[in-house]
Amino acid sequence: MLQTRVIPPAENAYQYPLLIKSLLLSGSRYEKTREIVYRDKLRYSYATFNERVARLANVLSEAGVKAGDTVAVMDWDSHRYLECMFAIPMIGAVLHTINIRLSPDQILYTMNHAEDRLVLVNSEFVPLYNAIAGQLTTVEKTLLLTDGDAKTADLPNLAGEYETLLAAASPRYDFAEFDENSVATTFYTTGTTGNPKGVYFTHRQLVLHTLAMASTIGALDSIRLMGTDDVYMPITPMFHVHAWGVPYVATMLGVKQVYPGRYEPDMLCRLIQEEKVTFSHCVPTILQMLMNAPNAQGHDFGGLKMIIGGSALNRALYEAAQAKGIQLTAAYGMSETCPLISCAYLNEQLRAGSENERTSYRIKAGVPVPLVEAAIMGSEGRFLPADGESQGELVLRAPWLTQGYFREPQKSEELWEHGWLHTGDVATLDSMGFVEIRDRIKDVIKTGGEWISSLELEDLISRHPAVREVAVVGVPDPQWGERPFALLVVREGQVLDAKGLKEHLKPFVEQGHINKWAIPTQIAVVTEIPKTSVGKLDKKRIRVDIAQWQEAGSPFLSTL
Amino acid sequence: MLQTRVIPPAENAYQYPLLIKSLLLSGSRYEKTREIVYRDKLRYSYATFNERVARLANVLSEAGVKAGDTVAVMDWDSHRYLECMFAIPMIGAVLHTINIRLSPDQILYTMNHAEDRLVLVNSEFVPLYNAIAGQLTTVEKTLLLTDGDAKTADLPNLAGEYETLLAAASPRYDFAEFDENSVATTFYTTGTTGNPKGVYFTHRQLVLHTLAMASTIGALDSIRLMGTDDVYMPITPMFHVHAWGVPYVATMLGVKQVYPGRYEPDMLCRLIQEEKVTFSHCVPTILQMLMNAPNAQGHDFGGLKMIIGGSALNRALYEAAQAKGIQLTAAYGMSETCPLISCAYLNEQLRAGSENERTSYRIKAGVPVPLVEAAIMGSEGRFLPADGESQGELVLRAPWLTQGYFREPQKSEELWEHGWLHTGDVATLDSMGFVEIRDRIKDVIKTGGEWISSLELEDLISRHPAVREVAVVGVPDPQWGERPFALLVVREGQVLDAKGLKEHLKPFVEQGHINKWAIPTQIAVVTEIPKTSVGKLDKKRIRVDIAQWQEAGSPFLSTL
Repeated sequence: MLQTRVIPPAENAYQYPLLIKSLLLSGSRYEKTREIVYRDKLRYSYATFNERVARLANVLSEAGVKAGDTVAVMDWDSHRYLECMFAIPMIGAVLHTINIRLSPDQILYTMNHAEDRLVLVNSEFVPLYNAIAGQLTTVEKTLLLTDGDAKTADLPNLAGEYETLLAAASPRYDFAEFDENSVATTFYTTGTTGNPKGVYFTHRQLVLHTLAMASTIGALDSIRLMGTDDVYMPITPMFHVHAWGVPYVATMLGVKQVYPGRYEPDMLCRLIQEEKVTFSHCVPTILQMLMNAPNAQGHDFGGLKMIIGGSALNRALYEAAQAKGIQLTAAYGMSETCPLISCAYLNEQLRAGSENERTSYRIKAGVPVPLVEAAIMGSEGRFLPADGESQGELVLRAPWLTQGYFREPQKSEELWEHGWLHTGDVATLDSMGFVEIRDRIKDVIKTGGEWISSLELEDLISRHPAVREVAVVGVPDPQWGERPFALLVVREGQVLDAKGLKEHLKPFVEQGHINKWAIPTQIAVVTEIPKTSVGKLDKKRIRVDIAQWQEAGSPFLSTL
Repeated sequence: MLQTRVIPPAENAYQYPLLIKSLLLSGSRYEKTREIVYRDKLRYSYATFNERVARLANVLSEAGVKAGDTVAVMDWDSHRYLECMFAIPMIGAVLHTINIRLSPDQILYTMNHAEDRLVLVNSEFVPLYNAIAGQLTTVEKTLLLTDGDAKTADLPNLAGEYETLLAAASPRYDFAEFDENSVATTFYTTGTTGNPKGVYFTHRQLVLHTLAMASTIGALDSIRLMGTDDVYMPITPMFHVHAWGVPYVATMLGVKQVYPGRYEPDMLCRLIQEEKVTFSHCVPTILQMLMNAPNAQGHDFGGLKMIIGGSALNRALYEAAQAKGIQLTAAYGMSETCPLISCAYLNEQLRAGSENERTSYRIKAGVPVPLVEAAIMGSEGRFLPADGESQGELVLRAPWLTQGYFREPQKSEELWEHGWLHTGDVATLDSMGFVEIRDRIKDVIKTGGEWISSLELEDLISRHPAVREVAVVGVPDPQWGERPFALLVVREGQVLDAKGLKEHLKPFVEQGHINKWAIPTQIAVVTEIPKTSVGKLDKKRIRVDIAQWQEAGSPFLSTL
């Protein structure tokens, strides 16, 4: 270690800690009249927002919540969730954002594992909560969240209803200062195997993430994605990586914020139109759903800027959105990374290119944002060149990555092997810093020493006119290690077999897009492809199905 | 202290430290072709810049510089200075930016006090350096900086000429990681009494300052002050608070940067025009000088955005700049604060106001930027209300304030009395968070229990048609504590005495702008008002002069 002139803690007494309370302070001190909007139910100013955070802090303290306790929320996207994102960490407690799309068993697991003390439950989730309440081992109290309908509900250890309690509480709270390395939030990510894993972020990490994101979306692109005059609405759940952390940025900047509750396409469109939303973010599936909504037809979304992440953004969707006046920018991140890692802003050279080229970069995973270091790692921790060709695992360093999985030392060690966070994604990095995700490592097909991207194969196969849906996985092969296997849904009245697919893929081999080992020798045509709870291809399940078919013989199979 | 769930250092192993090297990494990884320009002498790309920083690191290491050493620079604003701002801290050393406007004795004092080991000397400053070289107690080596003219000079212990050494050095350097609380930079600030005082900033502080500034200038105003497409040129010396820290921001964002060398008005104007500069910053005096430059006449600066700080921005200058197409925004900070504290961006309400109102806010000290806490403190650490009326000392907290004055424990304690940094400025804070500086505490006149702002009085007196220049100070008075005293320069052929001045000020008393104790009972008309080396009124000297006149009697004096 270099012998730098380190200021010892004793002489560094006035080092202001990085705490979430300073993000609240910033925007609300000067944009007092700006609004926070909840569906068509409620709207109030930042001045009121500030007071409500203090009221909530008083309510929680009176309900017995202490610093270090974990407080969980089961709610759709709301002003209440935003208030919890501030008040809970600001009293030194930990916010657990419950993924209400998990199965009841998984929710139960995460709540016991996180040691939730108090839970805020939306009235819609009361039946779900009550179904697991008997098995919760740490919860002492509940608070009821409603849209103004019922003021009470059949909830065990109910401390009261949110709005009623807030109204009765003092609008002042003297928020203390504490160590910036205090955990502020936690939530669970579901892998393909085993129990959900808890990631956690400290005040320091969330503040740094907020500043880096504000710099990125404010200054790093030819278009300012979000600035003071924008109107922000998330369409990524607040239980999922704090709606990508953008509510913290919007609050720091004093931007008008709109929270849509449950995602009903018509309500989303209405809010975008009526509240004049100019900045949002979501996954590709949700954007597709949004554009298909009845009241989106004939509507010009002109001026709406969106960040798309979660899965790869394809060109067709990019162009369809553009035709509707929506400017998309891809970004990349994951639960473990808080999440922002990279954003597809274009440099000087790329902006000078053709529209076609610009689009091809706008839909990549993008360039790492300030303070993020990205690299491509091959086997045994060896770094691969950033030449846009070499494929390996994308590994990361940044000041806001989870330091591990909560109480999972072995998985934490694997996550941080060789001192870099392992994303589990296969990617390339080019000389301009652009990351391109090729596949999930688990889904890459290793055949005869070559790596084949299942995503790339799926893209090529989906261009066959008969193909409605496709999933490609690697299946064990005694000679080659693995071989690609394609699972297909074909359009009504069409047929396709392994031979027909080979004919379709041959030109891509000849043009050098894929090598000849990439052509599946075995395919299966089915009526539906298994999906996960969030709508992604369930490749774990697909592999199990294929193994069974191969063992038992199946009419679905077609072999070359 | 709250018992939060602090992640202990052992479990926080992958916490990426905040180091200056990540600012360099960020912009230069994707904007490789963007340029760094030095006057009409040199231009190169960010890719080259990156290599040159590594070359410089090798040159310094080979010259014996070690982590913890202090390396000093005596140069005008240049690409070399920018390289030093990165390479020196990045090898763990401390950059001392020498204020070349100080007297040789003061420069000598600062260099010995900072314990400079190696000094980079611009050929223009060789005579100055040699005049003090014999008394330097810690310097071991020198490096020569030239604009390509001489490759050597009569400098003691000369290790070589900068460009020659860089050309010979390797363009690779493996920059180590170290504690983010390592000191990165230091420089000296001159008070009104005693020796210059050394302030110092750590890597952590500079990175946080950079992120907060990028968020501010990128996203917090209706106009984006600096974004990726801007062209940046400082007109605030790099030896003075790192040109307000903006070069770090510009580098992080990959913005084109122009360094003008010595400030010659014609060269500045030419660079603005030819390099298409769109963002800059300076003090009011320099802006005035710039607009008066011969080749600024008839030139439309349309699109140039400038931050003005250092002294109060007055309306006349604001409007004159606007007439030339320059959009000004006031900002506030000081050497001790790294410097950014507040910026006069307008909130929604203010932007809806009349142009007159908007201007009146654009020229105030502004609103504290993200992560800055500001308050008004009265006597004995008592906080005063943010009502836009209550005057007291502006005190601050933020993550980037100097933790003290280097090896001055008593002055450090005074600076941080009650745990807040004392600015020495009298200010008000209004309900929108706007700071308005009323005076320096030292210059405020305390008369009969009332505080009179010398700045406000100077403003009112300067409206008298006969007054060309004015300085107001408080002088001791046995009955009132202090009484205001006005020092005037009158226009040719005009006369003004204490009685005439009283007539002029009476209406302002009647309108309630000032109270009647503010009318000076004694004035002096002189031919010139003493100024400091940076062009500010030298009130310390003025007080001494007045005391002598009052004791000895003087023809300058006019008494009511």
